[in-house]
Amino acid sequence: MASLVVQKYGGTSVGSIDHIKRVAERIAETRRSGKDVVAVVSAMAGQTDQLLKMAWEISDAPTQRELDLLLSSGERISSALLTIALNAIGCQAVSLTGRQIGLQTDNKHTRARIKQIDGERCKRYLEKNHVVVVAGFQGVNEHGDVTTLGRGGSDTSAVALAVALNAEQCEILTDVDGVFTADPRVVPDARKLEIISYDEMLEMSGLGAKVLQLRCVEFAKKYQMPLIVRSSYNNHPGTLISEEDPNMEQPVVSGIMYDKNQAKITVKGVPDQPGIAAKLFNALAEASVSVDMIIQNISEEGHTDISFTVTTEHLADAMTEVNKVNEEINAETISADASISKISIVGAGMRSHSGVAALMFQTLSRENINILMISTSEIKVSCIIDEKHTEQATSTLHEAFDMKTDPVQIPQ
Amino acid sequence: MASLVVQKYGGTSVGSIDHIKRVAERIAETRRSGKDVVAVVSAMAGQTDQLLKMAWEISDAPTQRELDLLLSSGERISSALLTIALNAIGCQAVSLTGRQIGLQTDNKHTRARIKQIDGERCKRYLEKNHVVVVAGFQGVNEHGDVTTLGRGGSDTSAVALAVALNAEQCEILTDVDGVFTADPRVVPDARKLEIISYDEMLEMSGLGAKVLQLRCVEFAKKYQMPLIVRSSYNNHPGTLISEEDPNMEQPVVSGIMYDKNQAKITVKGVPDQPGIAAKLFNALAEASVSVDMIIQNISEEGHTDISFTVTTEHLADAMTEVNKVNEEINAETISADASISKISIVGAGMRSHSGVAALMFQTLSRENINILMISTSEIKVSCIIDEKHTEQATSTLHEAFDMKTDPVQIPQ
Repeated sequence: MASLVVQKYGGTSVGSIDHIKRVAERIAETRRSGKDVVAVVSAMAGQTDQLLKMAWEISDAPTQRELDLLLSSGERISSALLTIALNAIGCQAVSLTGRQIGLQTDNKHTRARIKQIDGERCKRYLEKNHVVVVAGFQGVNEHGDVTTLGRGGSDTSAVALAVALNAEQCEILTDVDGVFTADPRVVPDARKLEIISYDEMLEMSGLGAKVLQLRCVEFAKKYQMPLIVRSSYNNHPGTLISEEDPNMEQPVVSGIMYDKNQAKITVKGVPDQPGIAAKLFNALAEASVSVDMIIQNISEEGHTDISFTVTTEHLADAMTEVNKVNEEINAETISADASISKISIVGAGMRSHSGVAALMFQTLSRENINILMISTSEIKVSCIIDEKHTEQATSTLHEAFDMKTDPVQIPQ
Repeated sequence: MASLVVQKYGGTSVGSIDHIKRVAERIAETRRSGKDVVAVVSAMAGQTDQLLKMAWEISDAPTQRELDLLLSSGERISSALLTIALNAIGCQAVSLTGRQIGLQTDNKHTRARIKQIDGERCKRYLEKNHVVVVAGFQGVNEHGDVTTLGRGGSDTSAVALAVALNAEQCEILTDVDGVFTADPRVVPDARKLEIISYDEMLEMSGLGAKVLQLRCVEFAKKYQMPLIVRSSYNNHPGTLISEEDPNMEQPVVSGIMYDKNQAKITVKGVPDQPGIAAKLFNALAEASVSVDMIIQNISEEGHTDISFTVTTEHLADAMTEVNKVNEEINAETISADASISKISIVGAGMRSHSGVAALMFQTLSRENINILMISTSEIKVSCIIDEKHTEQATSTLHEAFDMKTDPVQIPQ
């Protein structure tokens, strides 16, 4: 059997008849190069939102099982249309739905997890020299009901299918050229990364990089499936996401991310005694509010202050919970600040280089940018700063870590 | 188990969010009256055309299997939305696709025939007091691929399901009040029929009555399933289509139909010898042109004329075929006339009454309407007339057969 590539095309790539025809040409080209192709498609751009809107106009609590039937229609439509387009240009193709590809999930409608993929029918078509076009985002549960995989579900379908079919790689075709060192709208000389490790990509996805969902990268890492993010509009090689190569020098910082969608809540003057923080954060967890960074000041006169960050969407819920809990913890003041942002540097090379965080702080300080909070992981440093400094901080750090050239060496 | 009614809602009835909510209210009302309900839905009005349009923009010969996947999405969307609407008003409901209802078809994509319906899952939900909302128009073939049933397929799904579930009746909810004696736009005092036989309805459907497709009526007749055509906008009883009651006086003429979508081809001066007509009509049949009426003149000097009618859509193809065959049959002239119409009277009472055709001819003659061709069946008389007389002929015949009162007696 020829080497197999699984390509995933997002909603924008199949967003119109012309786009679908262009994707068909691209797939036909890949076929001509001698490769087998499985194309996983999302719904045409805008369709999922349109279907959801109708459901919400009918009910403010639409039945989850029915939402899945509704939403899965979008990918069925785009997969049928792409298959028609492929056959029209003489590239033999066949569509398979989530059920037909044998994608079994658990029963959690609208956010199902993949249990297994059979893929037998897909293999039979590949052996008969067909391109197989797969409706992404969907599977079936044990009752034979349609389920959907939640946000980024088509990416996850694609990676899971690539693993099941033992593909050589899984390509995520999108409207950008790959993963960049920084947002090119903010940093004009941001550079497209040629290669990045799963761990770095996981950090970046966790920090809000929209190009790949966390779950899809986790899946790829787990099964060591090489992932490529590339544009569906050109043939540039894109960014390869794979295991770190221990023989290769790692750039210290691979990327800079910023996230303006952050808010800080400060609870001042609470008694510094065991259980206070637990009460607060338990309440938030029970209300499904994800807390990101937390700092607690050094106690003064038996009292302390606690600050933490949440996404702006969770701010209102978080304030409600904190005010409720305050009946027990008796803080002096509770305040919220939504005009902050999180700026992060990510790089596998941090593991073997010291002074990375120091250079970050020093750079921000030189620009008179105050750091409100800090958090670190083995391959990441994040700082909370005033939102108005976001772009300035991003550009300066990109410069300071000399990220426009590859590989980046930390200045000593 | 409570008595079961299968209701089919057409595309207009579920054509918008408001319409879907109204249908949900109606179903809930039927449930409150103590009946079990299975609701079969078409795609939202316009959606099937929109999907087809996209397919045809991509290819002038879209893959049939993919067309079925594409088109079946429309009914999945409407069934999910109606189920959400039912649950939102507290009427427990669940959707089932063609596959989930166990509707097995043959392999003829885009015009599949039903082989069997399992319906077990549907019964289980009915036993649990659910309304079952079924995506009409679709089934699966032996490979597990989606098939669609062709024009009027949702009506056929509904009747087949009513038979499989042993329903007390099958209601076709639409945007008219029922079956009328004549087109109310042409004959203001046209009357809604309370009851009509399967055979009469079959003739009417064959003559172009859009309210019910031939195939659905055939199915209902075969399994003796009472069919009711009624409005989805009011609670009027509609028209019952069932077996003729031999104890009841039949109206001589139940309805008058007209069809302007007719064209006549006349082949003049062909040799009057065996095989000429066979050559002509074989060629037409092979080109899938349906010929309706045929007349052949009495031979004069070894030559004869043949006239026949086709629908206007088939006129161009028919002329192409006739001109091709003419290389063998050597007619003097071949001409076409698209400005004709077919006017028909249908009534089971004709079986036991003579003089019906005579009254029809006499009435048309009195109005100076020339009859170009005639065809009859046991319960139908059709005349081809000049298209411009269509409305006049319809009104006059409605009057002559005294159809505004029920039951109609033939004037002796």
